[in-house]
Amino acid sequence: MVSKSQIKLLTSLQQKKYRNKLGLFIAEGPKVIKELLTSGVDLDSLFSTEKNLNPAKNEFLVSEKELQKISFFKTANTSVALFKIPPAKPLLKDCTTVVLDSIRDPGNLGTIIRLCDWFGINQLVCSEDTVDCYNPKVIQATMGSIARVQINYTDLTNFIKESKLPIYGASLSGENIYKHTLPEKVILVMGNEANGISSEINSLLTNRITIPQFGEQQDTESLNVASATAILLSELMRN
Amino acid sequence: MVSKSQIKLLTSLQQKKYRNKLGLFIAEGPKVIKELLTSGVDLDSLFSTEKNLNPAKNEFLVSEKELQKISFFKTANTSVALFKIPPAKPLLKDCTTVVLDSIRDPGNLGTIIRLCDWFGINQLVCSEDTVDCYNPKVIQATMGSIARVQINYTDLTNFIKESKLPIYGASLSGENIYKHTLPEKVILVMGNEANGISSEINSLLTNRITIPQFGEQQDTESLNVASATAILLSELMRN
Repeated sequence: MVSKSQIKLLTSLQQKKYRNKLGLFIAEGPKVIKELLTSGVDLDSLFSTEKNLNPAKNEFLVSEKELQKISFFKTANTSVALFKIPPAKPLLKDCTTVVLDSIRDPGNLGTIIRLCDWFGINQLVCSEDTVDCYNPKVIQATMGSIARVQINYTDLTNFIKESKLPIYGASLSGENIYKHTLPEKVILVMGNEANGISSEINSLLTNRITIPQFGEQQDTESLNVASATAILLSELMRN
Repeated sequence: MVSKSQIKLLTSLQQKKYRNKLGLFIAEGPKVIKELLTSGVDLDSLFSTEKNLNPAKNEFLVSEKELQKISFFKTANTSVALFKIPPAKPLLKDCTTVVLDSIRDPGNLGTIIRLCDWFGINQLVCSEDTVDCYNPKVIQATMGSIARVQINYTDLTNFIKESKLPIYGASLSGENIYKHTLPEKVILVMGNEANGISSEINSLLTNRITIPQFGEQQDTESLNVASATAILLSELMRN
């Protein structure tokens, strides 16, 4: 069963300030939990309606009703786990890096983390106002790949200024990505869902690239930022 | 203000059966509503907290509290609109078509519609168990592009059997997409989020293609279906 203080702890972790204070985050569903365990993320405790649990390892059997109380989702899965937030690793300066400038949607961040994992991009650097990667919705969207991508939140201006790699930015008015040969190593900046790359970061770019639009009607909204990241990472790796 | 019967009507439209029965769907937020109007979708009525409304055109001023009652979202925007579902158009047999085999997530379908619009793919054919494209979450994710892509729900087996184009399927064990020259016109089948393409449809494919995985760790979950569609459509159009 789940105690009142456990419920309080678990629900508090839906907020970033408590996640940071306690160094813990929530993951839900056996698939995501298993991926995180496999990737070596430290389990703090597990609450599950399934059997074969080990109370000595802080694994607790709970009822479906109890699980629903601690779940972030409208319909709870079979398990909710508490994991320890891994310590931040130092920033790497000489590797291909995806940089996110003020991404706000948790689904977009989760998808981008999964894309970085797929394409072997080890480092993701986020502006401090980018949605927290330990937000439960991000964790669900990453499908466990969060454990395999190094994510840092930092001041983008400093990070970019210190890099010796070319700084590419996704833009609506850049060079056609299909006609441009991308360098082997690159910093790739993706901007905010509504406003794109901020003017401060924009002034630091060495190249602006665009995914051209096809079709007759030229009034489509820009591509979703996760779709654009998928295409740009594919272009980067295909060569 | 919103009458009780209007609230009942609007909330009923969150369900597919009432959307089909009444031939209406809901769109929220000025951006999406404007895009639908621009694309020529017929407005039935509009409920908004903003001024400059025309009651003769079924545009009603509502309070924020009223708007929240009829909104599908936790935090309502400034406007909720009712649109008439456009009549289905006949299936086209000789054009590049994206085929969705049992896509369940509204966000994925919405993103794929937006991608089709961006890449000038005019036709999207969905299996009958694919999530309804007039689901409010799909409508929001399309950002209005739903009006510019022809979407049909039909029996995929019949549609594919009648096509004379090559039938490509996204698979985890197909030919490397970066080493394959795609034909000019193609039927591209994308499968269910968890199970991929169904065995019946799989047996009708002429080609299986794969987006290769990079990096050391080879245990990443498959790419999200919307990300995979983004990359495959980009590959199709880049030549």
